[in-house]
Amino acid sequence: MHPVYASDCEFAGTLGEMTLREIVELHPLPGGDFRDALLRCAEECLDCGGSCTACADASLSESDLAELTGVIRVCLDCADVCEATARIATRQTRPDIRLVRATIEACATTCVACAEECDRHAAHHEHCRICADVCRRCKAACDEVLAF
Amino acid sequence: MHPVYASDCEFAGTLGEMTLREIVELHPLPGGDFRDALLRCAEECLDCGGSCTACADASLSESDLAELTGVIRVCLDCADVCEATARIATRQTRPDIRLVRATIEACATTCVACAEECDRHAAHHEHCRICADVCRRCKAACDEVLAF
Amino acid sequence: MHPVYASDCEFAGTLGEMTLREIVELHPLPGGDFRDALLRCAEECLDCGGSCTACADASLSESDLAELTGVIRVCLDCADVCEATARIATRQTRPDIRLVRATIEACATTCVACAEECDRHAAHHEHCRICADVCRRCKAACDEVLAF
Amino acid sequence: MHPVYASDCEFAGTLGEMTLREIVELHPLPGGDFRDALLRCAEECLDCGGSCTACADASLSESDLAELTGVIRVCLDCADVCEATARIATRQTRPDIRLVRATIEACATTCVACAEECDRHAAHHEHCRICADVCRRCKAACDEVLAF
Repeated sequence: MHPVYASDCEFAGTLGEMTLREIVELHPLPGGDFRDALLRCAEECLDCGGSCTACADASLSESDLAELTGVIRVCLDCADVCEATARIATRQTRPDIRLVRATIEACATTCVACAEECDRHAAHHEHCRICADVCRRCKAACDEVLAF
Repeated sequence: MHPVYASDCEFAGTLGEMTLREIVELHPLPGGDFRDALLRCAEECLDCGGSCTACADASLSESDLAELTGVIRVCLDCADVCEATARIATRQTRPDIRLVRATIEACATTCVACAEECDRHAAHHEHCRICADVCRRCKAACDEVLAF
Repeated sequence: MHPVYASDCEFAGTLGEMTLREIVELHPLPGGDFRDALLRCAEECLDCGGSCTACADASLSESDLAELTGVIRVCLDCADVCEATARIATRQTRPDIRLVRATIEACATTCVACAEECDRHAAHHEHCRICADVCRRCKAACDEVLAF
Repeated sequence: MHPVYASDCEFAGTLGEMTLREIVELHPLPGGDFRDALLRCAEECLDCGGSCTACADASLSESDLAELTGVIRVCLDCADVCEATARIATRQTRPDIRLVRATIEACATTCVACAEECDRHAAHHEHCRICADVCRRCKAACDEVLAF
């Protein structure tokens, strides 16, 4: 089992916390449940963005590369959208709520598209199976923000 | 008048073409009107992203900085969304249309938010006036894609 | 104490592992000590990039904003360099070693500049103190790669 | 001939100017020759970054894809470095000169690596030939900054 999910750790079952959380919690403006949801979204977006970069790259070295062009395309797109969304969900100063919601909606849609394409290759490429999972976690974190 | 808009140039009234257009037009898959709209969108996104980075930075050096925190926040967000959207609109290989549309919709919403905030400071900061204009051009280029 | 550093966790004293590590370890090309160093570098770059985005944003809402323009500038730069470096350190397919080294050298230099500027404000802004620390951790992870 | 290079235009032989130039020229701090060199660098980095994204994507759709994994890898890296460098060269507020130089040096090295790999495929893929050219232009613009 991957150590992040080890049962004796406080953050079992979730991504290890990142330093950005400590910093955002020191933001001079008051926080609350919405900020917490944004922070989980930002952390999942960074994890998903890094994973999509890694899955696109692993696919580029596979012997069945010609079957994986769809995975590579959607993982590159998903990395770009997740990283932009991570930055926007991290920022707390004077947010434009329409902008924040529109970006997180686009990220949720992007994560679904990436998970679906990676799922098609999950049986023969473990990196695609893991990437699909992280996309679904990121989509769920986006949905938590959008539920407000 | 800025040379890009000089009347004796083929691309009068628009951004000068970028090299990415030449390359995308050589893409092995067939193009068409939708590709042309994506390309205009990609070019405007790169111009808008760079302009928002510059406007956030100019605002950071203004003597009325405390009045400009909203401009800085939204310009940083807009630069991030525009640059991610530029990459997605540039790619032609096996696009997921839901993903492409959702991203460009988020970009259009972001450009409107940035133009509105910059407009509030346009009378006393010329860089905000120009940034609002480029955001509106980028929004229009996004809308052209979304009209398909 | 921050849970990531809790002593009963396997990854005590370091950033919680990210999913990209699992994926990179499944890369079809063989790994080794250099890959391990690249992976630590990629993880620290993502943590540092997110932290710098958060520190720039917290600074933008501080009442002594006018004293913090240097922090904001260098944190924006450091976020950009760290995120580009994270992607490059993540990729394992056919690397150009000159390119990889030059990028990681620039990241190390950037992290030092950011840590120095944040240190100047660490006494009165805890987010600057934490940001300086994460920059030093990222610099150390860059140096580990450069030692090969 | 590509319209940007048409002989009756003021910016013949160079990239069309981008709106970021107008904005940076309005920056409240005084400019000079170094700022001009940074601006050319920023514009070339944006052109090169977009072109590398497009060349990686065109390569992904080519029938000899398996021969082009090195091009795809280096174009992805070059797009990431160029876009980070464009942002840093655009910002004028309180620059850390070590950081600016280190980033632009990494960009110059990256552009050389990308041009060399694209050149290897220039005879059979016109998009690789054009991409190699834009990398060399970007490298030259980096060198202009580094000559100060």
